[in-house]
Amino acid sequence: MRATVIHAPHDIRVEEVPDPGIQHPTDVVLRVVRACICGSDLWAYRGESARRPGQRIGHEFLGVVEEVGPGVNGFAVGDLAVAPFVWSDGTCGYCAEGLTTSCAEGGFWGSVGPDGAQSDGGQGEAVRVPHADGTLVKLPAAAASDDRLLTALLALSDVLGTGHHAAVGAGVGPGGTVAVVGDGAVGLCGVLAAKRLGAERVIALGRHTARTDIARRFGATDVVAERGEAALAAVRELTRGEGAHSVIEAVGTEQSMRTALGIVRDGGSIGYVGVPHGSATGVDLGVMFGRNIALRGGVAPVRRYIPELLPDVLDGTIDPSPVFDRSIGLDDVPVGYKEMDERTALKVLITP
Amino acid sequence: MRATVIHAPHDIRVEEVPDPGIQHPTDVVLRVVRACICGSDLWAYRGESARRPGQRIGHEFLGVVEEVGPGVNGFAVGDLAVAPFVWSDGTCGYCAEGLTTSCAEGGFWGSVGPDGAQSDGGQGEAVRVPHADGTLVKLPAAAASDDRLLTALLALSDVLGTGHHAAVGAGVGPGGTVAVVGDGAVGLCGVLAAKRLGAERVIALGRHTARTDIARRFGATDVVAERGEAALAAVRELTRGEGAHSVIEAVGTEQSMRTALGIVRDGGSIGYVGVPHGSATGVDLGVMFGRNIALRGGVAPVRRYIPELLPDVLDGTIDPSPVFDRSIGLDDVPVGYKEMDERTALKVLITP
Repeated sequence: MRATVIHAPHDIRVEEVPDPGIQHPTDVVLRVVRACICGSDLWAYRGESARRPGQRIGHEFLGVVEEVGPGVNGFAVGDLAVAPFVWSDGTCGYCAEGLTTSCAEGGFWGSVGPDGAQSDGGQGEAVRVPHADGTLVKLPAAAASDDRLLTALLALSDVLGTGHHAAVGAGVGPGGTVAVVGDGAVGLCGVLAAKRLGAERVIALGRHTARTDIARRFGATDVVAERGEAALAAVRELTRGEGAHSVIEAVGTEQSMRTALGIVRDGGSIGYVGVPHGSATGVDLGVMFGRNIALRGGVAPVRRYIPELLPDVLDGTIDPSPVFDRSIGLDDVPVGYKEMDERTALKVLITP
Repeated sequence: MRATVIHAPHDIRVEEVPDPGIQHPTDVVLRVVRACICGSDLWAYRGESARRPGQRIGHEFLGVVEEVGPGVNGFAVGDLAVAPFVWSDGTCGYCAEGLTTSCAEGGFWGSVGPDGAQSDGGQGEAVRVPHADGTLVKLPAAAASDDRLLTALLALSDVLGTGHHAAVGAGVGPGGTVAVVGDGAVGLCGVLAAKRLGAERVIALGRHTARTDIARRFGATDVVAERGEAALAAVRELTRGEGAHSVIEAVGTEQSMRTALGIVRDGGSIGYVGVPHGSATGVDLGVMFGRNIALRGGVAPVRRYIPELLPDVLDGTIDPSPVFDRSIGLDDVPVGYKEMDERTALKVLITP
């Protein structure tokens, strides 16, 4: 089959790779119907996070079950299903409490195991899914013929659940004020999730009107286009000089964390889901201490959230599909990376 | 009157200072009945946090109302009352929601205001209490003649409320497992607070048996005397290799935060109340991100907690008095600092 491979920074190729097959009784093989490129894939693309030359890439996908291992109970050939960005066994203590990202049997799509084995990435024609019963979530068959809905459902594999995790970590609840740092797909889904959780006021920070227009559509009540100190002042002005109770940090740089700390209200929470990168964190414990700021979040256990978010996506209560502003076939994946790297595309949808 | 003054690191004196009087209608003057020395006073003593030469010191005290400003409604001459370590107006938005440490009208005992005015410290014969209605909490008159109870009630001014804040930040609840980093009075009160909140298992880290004996008396189910990597391994062995859901960080050094991160379970919380000092924080955001660790806490709004904790101290449900292992008069305060600095005393009680 054909799949996306990263050979070096800025060297992404779509190549012939071995067809996936059942290796363990709990596997299924999923024929990928939709996949996409993530902001975090760009860290590998830019050489900021290491990849083995020739490693597979892509961790967001949904598809149709093509082959089923003898130990799988919940899926049959032909089922439509979405995969979270981490697989997990669904049975351990961590999975039972919903922290699927800490499952000892879990792993990231496209990763290389301790034994050197290469798992399939999501940006390809098919994927071997380990621990299918614990990992996949079934979707209604009718969704397969609804293009807009398929796109919205794909967001369940990462960005919608990650935005939701940030909103939960930030303590968003009915009537609250939320500020969102990061105008990428995760930040925008954070806006959507915050609104869904009942936030009264949602302040989106961003300068690109194409993106802030989506933020408004997702429920942002205010947009702050200023940068640096002026952005902090603008948010404080919107919040009686105090800052926002809840701040979503959806970038992961030192600067974005400093911004988050600068706009959070005393006693408030920062929900952090931006993958930390760079040498400094921007976490100033002295400032946090004096102001009683909480920091909650991390890699989102999206598998836990899919059953909660799915009904709202299916009935149209929330529609994350506008974060996908570019649609390509598998051959164009290298172009998709380039467009996202240059910020001419927000999030690229792939139909293999 | 006589009060404690810090002139330079290791130069603590008890001197004649101006008698306090009513300066604002909302003041009272409190004759100090009991005060004490705090672990955080030692940062000034050791020169690790700056003080103006000749500055007053001490922030934990209870006493009898001696003079009442015309704007005070809740107190009369002769009332016994305890002061939290920060005064606050009791009426602003932050006070209303219990975050009294963020009150714009608030301040620390012994601090020097922006106008250069010196507020009274707690380690003296009397204190002018600003915003008395918002700050002080009345105690039953009968407590004045009960030496053990007076000592226990003094812990409400800081260490008991701070330990409770750490336990709340660490997410302690019925049935949980808690590990406590720090064997000082705050850490020990953290043990007591965790037990009170229903923790099933409380693991105290410490090597000094005099302190760990108090920890056991306060409800610790396990004591880990190992240090460094061996301590992490010991806590993990006690927790099925996973670590504790809740960790109380009651020291404030880089090493103590690293220990806290090393023994917290994935998805758990660190309640941090140790005043951060030193150039590095020990906060490793990359580790926290991957394991979904939350960090919650800061300077404890103990004023908020006193009404909740007071009944349990009065009826003996909890008794923090054992953290005071040395009792002195005002003249001996310099000796008290020396003993706490050298760790021959855990916490020094002062009867002026």
